[in-house]
Amino acid sequence: MNTILNSQLNIRKGLLFFSLIIMMISCKGDLKTDVTVGVVKNIAELDEAISNAGPGDNIVLANGVWKDVQIKFLGEGTEKAPITLRAETPGKVFIEGVSNLEMSGDYLKVNGLFFRNGHSPTENVIAFRTSKDSVANYSSVSNCVILDFNNLERDQDNLWVQFYGTHNKLDHCYIAGKTNGGPTVRVDLKGNQSIRNYHQIVNNHFGPRPRKGGARGETIQLGSSFTSMSPSNTTIANNLFEECNGEVEIISSKTNFNLIKNNVFYKSEGSVVTRHGNYATIDGNYFIGDGKNKQFGGIRIVNTGHWIINNYFYNIIGENFRSPLAVMNGIPKSPLNRYNQVTDVVVAYNTYVNCKSPWQFGVGTNIAQADVLPKSEIRSARALRTEVVNNIIYNKIGDKNIIIEHDKADGVTFKSNIVNNQGVAFDNPERIGATEFELTKVSENIFLPKLTSEFEIYKGFGFEKITKDLFGNSREDKNSIGAAVQGEFKDPAILDKTKYGADWYSNVVETAVPNVIEVTATNGELETKIAAAKAGDVISLSPGTYNVSKSIVINKIITIQSKDSEKAEIVFTGADNTPVFELNPYGILTIKNVILTGNDKQQAFSNLKENMSNHFGLTVSGCEINNFNYVLKAYKQTFAEEITFKNTAISDCENGIELSEETNDRGDYNTEYLTIDNCQFTNVKQNVIDYYRGGYDESTIGGNLLVTNSTFTNCGAQEKNRILLNHRGIVNVTINKNTFTNNSVQFVSILWGAKNNVASENSFSNSGKIKTEENLVMKLMY
Amino acid sequence: MNTILNSQLNIRKGLLFFSLIIMMISCKGDLKTDVTVGVVKNIAELDEAISNAGPGDNIVLANGVWKDVQIKFLGEGTEKAPITLRAETPGKVFIEGVSNLEMSGDYLKVNGLFFRNGHSPTENVIAFRTSKDSVANYSSVSNCVILDFNNLERDQDNLWVQFYGTHNKLDHCYIAGKTNGGPTVRVDLKGNQSIRNYHQIVNNHFGPRPRKGGARGETIQLGSSFTSMSPSNTTIANNLFEECNGEVEIISSKTNFNLIKNNVFYKSEGSVVTRHGNYATIDGNYFIGDGKNKQFGGIRIVNTGHWIINNYFYNIIGENFRSPLAVMNGIPKSPLNRYNQVTDVVVAYNTYVNCKSPWQFGVGTNIAQADVLPKSEIRSARALRTEVVNNIIYNKIGDKNIIIEHDKADGVTFKSNIVNNQGVAFDNPERIGATEFELTKVSENIFLPKLTSEFEIYKGFGFEKITKDLFGNSREDKNSIGAAVQGEFKDPAILDKTKYGADWYSNVVETAVPNVIEVTATNGELETKIAAAKAGDVISLSPGTYNVSKSIVINKIITIQSKDSEKAEIVFTGADNTPVFELNPYGILTIKNVILTGNDKQQAFSNLKENMSNHFGLTVSGCEINNFNYVLKAYKQTFAEEITFKNTAISDCENGIELSEETNDRGDYNTEYLTIDNCQFTNVKQNVIDYYRGGYDESTIGGNLLVTNSTFTNCGAQEKNRILLNHRGIVNVTINKNTFTNNSVQFVSILWGAKNNVASENSFSNSGKIKTEENLVMKLMY
Repeated sequence: MNTILNSQLNIRKGLLFFSLIIMMISCKGDLKTDVTVGVVKNIAELDEAISNAGPGDNIVLANGVWKDVQIKFLGEGTEKAPITLRAETPGKVFIEGVSNLEMSGDYLKVNGLFFRNGHSPTENVIAFRTSKDSVANYSSVSNCVILDFNNLERDQDNLWVQFYGTHNKLDHCYIAGKTNGGPTVRVDLKGNQSIRNYHQIVNNHFGPRPRKGGARGETIQLGSSFTSMSPSNTTIANNLFEECNGEVEIISSKTNFNLIKNNVFYKSEGSVVTRHGNYATIDGNYFIGDGKNKQFGGIRIVNTGHWIINNYFYNIIGENFRSPLAVMNGIPKSPLNRYNQVTDVVVAYNTYVNCKSPWQFGVGTNIAQADVLPKSEIRSARALRTEVVNNIIYNKIGDKNIIIEHDKADGVTFKSNIVNNQGVAFDNPERIGATEFELTKVSENIFLPKLTSEFEIYKGFGFEKITKDLFGNSREDKNSIGAAVQGEFKDPAILDKTKYGADWYSNVVETAVPNVIEVTATNGELETKIAAAKAGDVISLSPGTYNVSKSIVINKIITIQSKDSEKAEIVFTGADNTPVFELNPYGILTIKNVILTGNDKQQAFSNLKENMSNHFGLTVSGCEINNFNYVLKAYKQTFAEEITFKNTAISDCENGIELSEETNDRGDYNTEYLTIDNCQFTNVKQNVIDYYRGGYDESTIGGNLLVTNSTFTNCGAQEKNRILLNHRGIVNVTINKNTFTNNSVQFVSILWGAKNNVASENSFSNSGKIKTEENLVMKLMY
Repeated sequence: MNTILNSQLNIRKGLLFFSLIIMMISCKGDLKTDVTVGVVKNIAELDEAISNAGPGDNIVLANGVWKDVQIKFLGEGTEKAPITLRAETPGKVFIEGVSNLEMSGDYLKVNGLFFRNGHSPTENVIAFRTSKDSVANYSSVSNCVILDFNNLERDQDNLWVQFYGTHNKLDHCYIAGKTNGGPTVRVDLKGNQSIRNYHQIVNNHFGPRPRKGGARGETIQLGSSFTSMSPSNTTIANNLFEECNGEVEIISSKTNFNLIKNNVFYKSEGSVVTRHGNYATIDGNYFIGDGKNKQFGGIRIVNTGHWIINNYFYNIIGENFRSPLAVMNGIPKSPLNRYNQVTDVVVAYNTYVNCKSPWQFGVGTNIAQADVLPKSEIRSARALRTEVVNNIIYNKIGDKNIIIEHDKADGVTFKSNIVNNQGVAFDNPERIGATEFELTKVSENIFLPKLTSEFEIYKGFGFEKITKDLFGNSREDKNSIGAAVQGEFKDPAILDKTKYGADWYSNVVETAVPNVIEVTATNGELETKIAAAKAGDVISLSPGTYNVSKSIVINKIITIQSKDSEKAEIVFTGADNTPVFELNPYGILTIKNVILTGNDKQQAFSNLKENMSNHFGLTVSGCEINNFNYVLKAYKQTFAEEITFKNTAISDCENGIELSEETNDRGDYNTEYLTIDNCQFTNVKQNVIDYYRGGYDESTIGGNLLVTNSTFTNCGAQEKNRILLNHRGIVNVTINKNTFTNNSVQFVSILWGAKNNVASENSFSNSGKIKTEENLVMKLMY
């Protein structure tokens, strides 16, 4: 069966061919295992090899770029003799262009592929099935990388790895950079062939997933509400999640009996959430924050029967949905896709170090919104039969509100919890015993309590099954409260990246010293040098007037700044409705101390109308911007993690900062953070700031608008809705210390009272006022 | 530890005492097992014995009546040395009065008790817990009987056996006669101590449970919607369900992973329903009907992942909800307590003999009622990913509609099904192959197909796990479609009652020849002889006028009839608002050919206003009833399975048949069947017929009103609502071949079009008309 393939081997492979023959002969008498059937060099050869492959065969993809390939890996291996599809050299086989991999059958193994510079033609990059009826079982994808393999449009949702069948594995892979909609990895359970799947997602490195803006940005989703009654038995273990910031849920467990164990959640802006389904075990995980970023979360609980044990939380200061332990209120008799009540949950043997208000109950209660929401949306059902016991809290700075009850925790039993709160009094001391103890530093982020006296251990039903601690040490002989039993601790080296992901890939980047490229006002030099610059370089503008007649493409990280204290001026003579700077995917521009002058018809900054397959970014500092139609115009399906204007004067423009095209009302928006600090807006006629998010979804917690220390003068004259600062649907809004003068609007801003919208210390003169609406009527998203 | 008890043994027990000592000594060197600690004679001794009992102890209840005892059986036995609480002689220990049994601890065994003549003071008769936190595990109740142990009021819901904890067993018990609200047996799962319970309900005989009228009359309920996400793993196996007519659900499975196996459902007016929860296995059960009663049902499917295999259906002609296989429509994104969509269900290897339209899909669809129901009530989600395969149908008389699609079965795969339809064409022949084969009679109710050719067997995902057939024969070597693999069949003796229930109790009653007791019109003789009669006796009235001044109590089955063709007349001179015949619990009266005359202020028939702890019944035939305030007045919380008037003239009464006090709108009503045939109603001023059921609950399918061949003349003159025959909410109404003359009402009847309400061949003269309202606006029950 290998003759065709072998005959295709060329002369250069003769030696290999020969050794293969020897291998095959030597294996003959034995079980046929690990037989390399040949190095295939193109999709035709690969298809042929796959169609001929049998147990033990080893299909090798030749090194190089495989462009526009749709690999269907079908086969029937056996436990002892799987069929392998692997890179000739791991990491040297590049799957690019419009490509994907689907597999079905039994005992199939994929190893060493690098998906990059492309996207999938289907709804997934790697799928453990080839058709609705043909799934893979006992198969694996190992030692692979998927990097930035994004669809061209942000709203073209897909998955990068989609599980079907049973007993499949994703291990030792590095996966990062997904910006389009859809979870990075999803386990699908529709159909009996995919339940009780015992899939394993282990030893992977989930690298940075940028903020997506809105929902559908989970890193791992286990099932969906429609399969939330199904037993899944999926294991997610020993993975590193690094800066997985896609949305509020890093892992969204939506099925039953899943195990989430010994993972590291490092500076990831989200939580592990038992969104649907029941009886998850979340055991021995590390949640590492920085004590500053409130977006880093912990474990958020919905539904029944979960066990939250042996987890370690460090420097997590997330609030409410993002608190280290967030126990949600449910909807009584909830619809299938909404919030079931929390019942029969155990939270035991966890350690919280320097976390702010680590335990929050009644999270998501919205009884106050009963007027604007249907009854089937009101989360009023408090947790029942839930135990929070044997936990330790250490606060370097005493915390007056260790427990926050958004709704009463009256269905929760608290026993055998202790805290060192530095002697600071706190609410509900009967729930947590104040005591004194010190910490032992085990490593950079690991500080463990050293108890000097014995504390009684609460033993609830089933507690005898908690036999190990955070480090895998036995709890059976000598037990203690907290995540780790007392004793000598070894550094778990949780951030040693060689333990996770593909062995041939590292995402550690040496910090390069940026080149400073000097540019003069000579015609065309600016454009040429920006195009030639490397990511991170600084373009330094000599004084003068730069006449630019065509949009300058920004498709990398770049800084443009005036060389001297005298600001260089860019005078744009480009066509109407074109920008000075066209922000392309990956284009992150910092512009400092530059004057931008238009002719009233153009845009200072804009992005592509289509194919924004990756995010952009913009920081404007110390600039003067005048005479544009738009200062910034962001199009639909485009996203910037951060947009910042500071120390900048904006004047005589028709429109200001326009981020309002995400009108699909699915919770999307154009930027996560819009920051305006110490800016002067003068004679900006409309849309001075227009930043929109539509669609009611309580679990999406963005965007963020900060307007501070700025002046708005003679603005908003043409504003049709008579509101100066438009930010409808934005969850976090701060308007502080601004001066509003002679703006002919009715309202400077309408704040959303139920959310985190605040204004203070502003001064108004002949301008509209700031109003607060407690509840916005919004379209339900589901 | 046994000394106290032993010292309490009296002289008469000396011999026993002595032998006990010997037993104890002989056991001493060995593991302590089965040590009788003494015969206890009252609750104090019992409590003492229980408090002292240890592993291996055997507490014996002395024979006799134990009245008003609340037994709390707490203890810690071991697997090899359980603690036993048993009757001195099984069946000779009578638990009566206000009594119950609660147990908690491990390895406790109860044996031989007879609960009768009483009711429980708590919400259960037998509970596997003694407090919220103290449950029983590895414990059993065996060889016991619970008979008619009903609460005094029908609306005082309770349970007779309530499971908590894990690994408990109810076996070899006889349980019958529950008339008050609440399932007979329920498994409760609230709290982690009661999930994955592996309880066993096996080898029991569930004797007749009378129709309850409305909901809350299940024989077994496994959990509730609130625990429908929990793994239960309860087994219900090898039980006989005989005339379990409580409500539309005999077994209501509401949790996950339950096994319902090898049970016999014999002439039981209900179905096995996977009401909530998922992944039930319903394997090898017998559903035996009579080909006449449409109330006998089969298996009704809601939710995900059930396996319906190896079942045998005989003479089941139930329709819609009660069809042999009823696959329901779900509510999209259903609330927790409503109807989830059917997905991933397998219906394989079942045999249907002489069942009418055995497969019904889209059951419960109510798209047409979208106008009167909220969106969250509309069952429009059809079954998905469901397989109906390898089944055999045999119809003695060809069936044109083997499959009924209340809504499309387009998400169902049909493969390898065959039918002998006697050559009669039927819809969707591509789903079931028409073929010829004969039946083999195995026993009275068991007829199995004898296939003369081989039929292909469909092998779906997981089918290799169906290793046995209906009889436990292997499917692995030689398999065939249908419930039983082809071969020689042994009579499974499914109705051999010695196989089920307590070995000391039988519900088989010799048919006694009734005594005919002659009565003359002598003052008081009628009342005395009725009181003295035995159940089933016939009171034969000599001609004459019987003056009765006080209500006659009917508390047993009795017939009162005129001896000769000349009708005896009972003239009632009792107080206002008292009945001639006061129907008490168990009072089932048949009265024939008698004239009943009142003074316009009394009732001909009524029942108790309170404490109707069991049902009544009434058949009036060939009588003349005149000058009463009410012909029949039924009070709240009273129920008759059947009320029949035939060949009877009713005249000059203020009110007719009044069955309308169940106004709680919880789906309750006063009788299951009200039958009026060939009667003459003349000058009945209001409530000629008033029969009410309130509360919307699609799964309750009663009551039944039949009005045929009767005349209504000059009736309804005082009727406030201007409707002659009031039957609002009654699901089955037939009004046929009646004559309505000079009734001054607006409507003779308002039929409920969406339900089974029909009228035909009636003639009207100067009377109201019959109107049909398609959808009634009703109060939701939940």
